[in-house]
Amino acid sequence: MTTSLTLYDIPSTLPSKAWSPNIYKVRYVLNYKGLPHRTEWVEFPHIEGLYKRLGAQASATKPDGVAPHYTLPLLHDHSTGALVSDSAAIARYLDRTYPETPSVIPKGTDTFHYAFNDGLLSHFRVAALWRLTLAKTNSSLNPASQEYYRRTREASLLGGQRLEDAVPKGEEREKEWANLEEVFGKVDAWYGKGDRYVMGDVVSYADFTVSAWVMWFRTLFGEDSEEWKGVSRWHGGRWGALVKDLEKYETVL
Amino acid sequence: MTTSLTLYDIPSTLPSKAWSPNIYKVRYVLNYKGLPHRTEWVEFPHIEGLYKRLGAQASATKPDGVAPHYTLPLLHDHSTGALVSDSAAIARYLDRTYPETPSVIPKGTDTFHYAFNDGLLSHFRVAALWRLTLAKTNSSLNPASQEYYRRTREASLLGGQRLEDAVPKGEEREKEWANLEEVFGKVDAWYGKGDRYVMGDVVSYADFTVSAWVMWFRTLFGEDSEEWKGVSRWHGGRWGALVKDLEKYETVL
Repeated sequence: MTTSLTLYDIPSTLPSKAWSPNIYKVRYVLNYKGLPHRTEWVEFPHIEGLYKRLGAQASATKPDGVAPHYTLPLLHDHSTGALVSDSAAIARYLDRTYPETPSVIPKGTDTFHYAFNDGLLSHFRVAALWRLTLAKTNSSLNPASQEYYRRTREASLLGGQRLEDAVPKGEEREKEWANLEEVFGKVDAWYGKGDRYVMGDVVSYADFTVSAWVMWFRTLFGEDSEEWKGVSRWHGGRWGALVKDLEKYETVL
Repeated sequence: MTTSLTLYDIPSTLPSKAWSPNIYKVRYVLNYKGLPHRTEWVEFPHIEGLYKRLGAQASATKPDGVAPHYTLPLLHDHSTGALVSDSAAIARYLDRTYPETPSVIPKGTDTFHYAFNDGLLSHFRVAALWRLTLAKTNSSLNPASQEYYRRTREASLLGGQRLEDAVPKGEEREKEWANLEEVFGKVDAWYGKGDRYVMGDVVSYADFTVSAWVMWFRTLFGEDSEEWKGVSRWHGGRWGALVKDLEKYETVL
């Protein structure tokens, strides 16, 4: 199989260079399926230009519901000419286009996958998550992306508050970590007691979505940080074990 | 197979006598599996006494997180002695105990079912739903249950407002119906375009949970009401078709 797939990603100054949970979901899928691909790096302010240069359609709209919102991941499949954005749409595209590779959204679980992702986001979209990650993410980006990231995230996720002012300190910080643990606990409660993966023994796209979010903390704070050790240990070590299990699929190509 | 299963339900003065969405979920499962059973009717204020008489454990707690909360459905399996409450727990119990009957939570979908239900409730638990249903539900109950239902629902779902005062009128009523349609739209968006059921062609417990909520409107307002006709037609007629498809499993035994 030749490398006919390009995954567009946003670079950081972190050792892994890659950092975005939504783009890691696609990387997991590509590696799990054994599909050779190449990562191309694009700074935030250049994403719109990339779409226009490639002639790709935006799959999302800005908060006004009208203006196109140009986001990564974007996958370019040179063998079919397809340009697909949105991580779940890419997973579905790859299942459909490469049926000889292991399916990540097994037959009969399509609606469940949508519901799972929706349920996951309804829990994860909490102030605690943004307050603990956004400032750290911004300072890990290249200067070329920082102004864009700051402006958009302050407006959309922090209600206009400055990234740095949203970072919780002292007791408040402990409280926000506890809030986040509680949020993860709601997701943990979905799993059958002995279940390692969402579907039991078989990996599916749902596992990649969970793991991509969890891994964000390892990426941002570092493998040896107290923060990552804490998250890994929550809920009987479920989250640390999941990221470890899927580590073999996170290689940046 | 002899009738060794008793399903405890709350009666109403409506033609179907049964009305509770959570209890219909179990009735759907019992009928789908072809498990003969008998419904026993219990008024709200007598549920706690029933649990104590049978020696059943409450599976929920009151908002204080400590005091046992005695709820229906409760299923008594006389052949095993099991007493199971909570509709999803009953579905799991019946799958496990009667493996020769069609499974409602197929292997590999247990976590998906939890997530689905959680996602569904996160959408459905909106003011519009309660404002459009609670007063009507209360006036459909027997007098023996009305004081209990009013007291608990006003406190837990209406923030102390009287049932009758919460009912939207005029333009506000249209707005609340539109709000509810939007909520159902979020669930509709989960489904694959041609999919009739959550898992495609195969019925699963997830369909029973959705249908039980939708059917509530038919039960409360009547088959020929404008309200039910409206709900049935939303989103390409998905909801009306679903209830119709599963009608054969809603018989009260």
